[in-house]
Amino acid sequence: MNPLVSEIPPSIIRAINARKRPGDIDLCMGEPTLRPDPAPFEKATGWVRDHGCPYTPNAGLDELRERIAAYCALPDGAGAAGVCVTVGSEEALYLAIKTVVDPSRDEVLVVEPAYLAYAKLCVLEGIRHRGVALAPEDGFAPSAARVLEALRPETRLVVIASPCNPTGRVWPEAELRALAEGLSSRPGPPVYVLSDEVYRELYFTPEPPVSIASLYPHTLVAASVSKSNALTGLRLGWLAGPPEVVSAAIKVHQFVNTAASTFSQVVALELFRDPESLAAHRPFYERTRAALLAAADRHGVPHLPPEGTFYCLLRLPPGLSGDSLAAAERLLEEQRVVAVPGIAFGDSTEGWLRLSWVTGEDLLDEALRRIAEFFVRNA
Amino acid sequence: MNPLVSEIPPSIIRAINARKRPGDIDLCMGEPTLRPDPAPFEKATGWVRDHGCPYTPNAGLDELRERIAAYCALPDGAGAAGVCVTVGSEEALYLAIKTVVDPSRDEVLVVEPAYLAYAKLCVLEGIRHRGVALAPEDGFAPSAARVLEALRPETRLVVIASPCNPTGRVWPEAELRALAEGLSSRPGPPVYVLSDEVYRELYFTPEPPVSIASLYPHTLVAASVSKSNALTGLRLGWLAGPPEVVSAAIKVHQFVNTAASTFSQVVALELFRDPESLAAHRPFYERTRAALLAAADRHGVPHLPPEGTFYCLLRLPPGLSGDSLAAAERLLEEQRVVAVPGIAFGDSTEGWLRLSWVTGEDLLDEALRRIAEFFVRNA
Repeated sequence: MNPLVSEIPPSIIRAINARKRPGDIDLCMGEPTLRPDPAPFEKATGWVRDHGCPYTPNAGLDELRERIAAYCALPDGAGAAGVCVTVGSEEALYLAIKTVVDPSRDEVLVVEPAYLAYAKLCVLEGIRHRGVALAPEDGFAPSAARVLEALRPETRLVVIASPCNPTGRVWPEAELRALAEGLSSRPGPPVYVLSDEVYRELYFTPEPPVSIASLYPHTLVAASVSKSNALTGLRLGWLAGPPEVVSAAIKVHQFVNTAASTFSQVVALELFRDPESLAAHRPFYERTRAALLAAADRHGVPHLPPEGTFYCLLRLPPGLSGDSLAAAERLLEEQRVVAVPGIAFGDSTEGWLRLSWVTGEDLLDEALRRIAEFFVRNA
Repeated sequence: MNPLVSEIPPSIIRAINARKRPGDIDLCMGEPTLRPDPAPFEKATGWVRDHGCPYTPNAGLDELRERIAAYCALPDGAGAAGVCVTVGSEEALYLAIKTVVDPSRDEVLVVEPAYLAYAKLCVLEGIRHRGVALAPEDGFAPSAARVLEALRPETRLVVIASPCNPTGRVWPEAELRALAEGLSSRPGPPVYVLSDEVYRELYFTPEPPVSIASLYPHTLVAASVSKSNALTGLRLGWLAGPPEVVSAAIKVHQFVNTAASTFSQVVALELFRDPESLAAHRPFYERTRAALLAAADRHGVPHLPPEGTFYCLLRLPPGLSGDSLAAAERLLEEQRVVAVPGIAFGDSTEGWLRLSWVTGEDLLDEALRRIAEFFVRNA
């Protein structure tokens, strides 16, 4: 057996989920509860009636790749050649890490707090990885200086997320520019940036998040329609970046998966032909976020207002902050509220809990009331 | 960059395909030209209207996993725990190779002639691999003795295919029993068999192919609905085998792809609820095969009658048999017939060409006539 597979640590989120009971308030989920628009599925079914369900090219349908390239604002008119259509953004993360890193000498630097899969993919591929933590005292504000200070000669890939799961922070354009400039000025082969933009459409800042792809040529974007359109089960994402890297990633994609589902690609093409549909769910999240923040204020729960995503970090009181896993377990047992312990996202969030607020407004007041009670008991 | 990715040799099939011109007779294709039944797509669209399109569990829908386990006749009632629903059989091959082999010490033994992806996946994963060739003089008849003789202490995985692409041969039960007994009697940790059964429904023997999964406990089956139901674009397959191996493979699957498309799984569930639908296309292939064999006989083209798949190996005449790639290129230039050179499937098929006969009966007579002319000119 491959020892790298057994080295992957078990999932903390899954362990918490396994303890859920009927009737618990579930603020643990990483997927929308909204229903997707069925119209693209109906159109795609018509397409199958006319065309069957053959393979697409390995990298995906040409028109879909071109529309994604335009959406990602890839520099220098890379067009379709800069895009591989993937099985969700998860496969895009895998392809990026598998393709640009030489496991025998390179390392990956993960900007934390971070989605747990980045580090686990490195373990799976036998790649050294390190975390660089943003500062809790700044509300985990993205900081180019912190990242640049943490680079080593062997760092070949830096992983960022904007908007970020779990912090909800969006990288400001100025910090992205500083990061791009700092990376560009390094001698030797390029340091790639893997920019996880799966929450790109779910932002609450005045302007949409800027992608570092528009500022730094050695950027690989991983994203999907999963979160924007409540289509997690469609398994339709993309890796976008420099054509010479993407063409190597397509080889990996070809031998691991052949291609993404043709049906899913036709559904996605319907969405991209009407780009407003990608933003259709944002008003729901804007309303729900406002209700969440009002409830947190009302009940006095310390929290970090998210600039994007459908998550929110809560700061644990001193009596709980040393062990977020125990805090989440007790919150579940004593108050019947399911949340993810911060430790799941790296040491920097050990004193925090992550709530997901995809459920809509209804249960948020009651959930925050129970959390406040629990925090006060353990202050 | 990862040197293993650049080491993957370019695809010979793709190079031939790139030279195709409009009007050429294309006998190169690896996918059905039949149209799939649209009814399961319509039902799945109704399902999305009712349920949305959420993630399934990483390993797939429970009912689908159970039905696949029953279909694969997994021993000891493994049930759903013995199945991971994958992105086509391609991902199942990847998961098997990635999971059971320790790249630092194990090797993979590929029974040739073989589908080219087995060796390329080993290259991608940095795993040593060797081929063991079946004998052209026996028509590439499956032989347990040949495989058992080729084993080394470090062999941890043996890859077979039944029915086999490109030979069309089916492993007889007696040979599978001999292979199972020989492998079982080896000391040390088990030698796994990866059994590629993606053509399982396309057989022309009196009885359906036997799966070694029913005879040997350390078997991993890779298959899909791609070929049986003209659903290559559905990207819906499975890895089936011992639950302790499959549960490790599910970890890889989870971090690489999260899960297979929910929509594709619902379509497949519709098929498995009516198992006769899996065999619905066989009569078409029986008819086309009869027409192919009649045309080959009529024009005197030496060939190996397939027992399964939708391929057929043609034996090149002495003037061509030393270089199947040159033969395929000249056949394309001089006769406008596209076929795959045997060398694409290993050295053992260097003196052969592979035809695909998915196109149906219409063009087969003309194609075989042109091939016969070409062979006679170069006898």
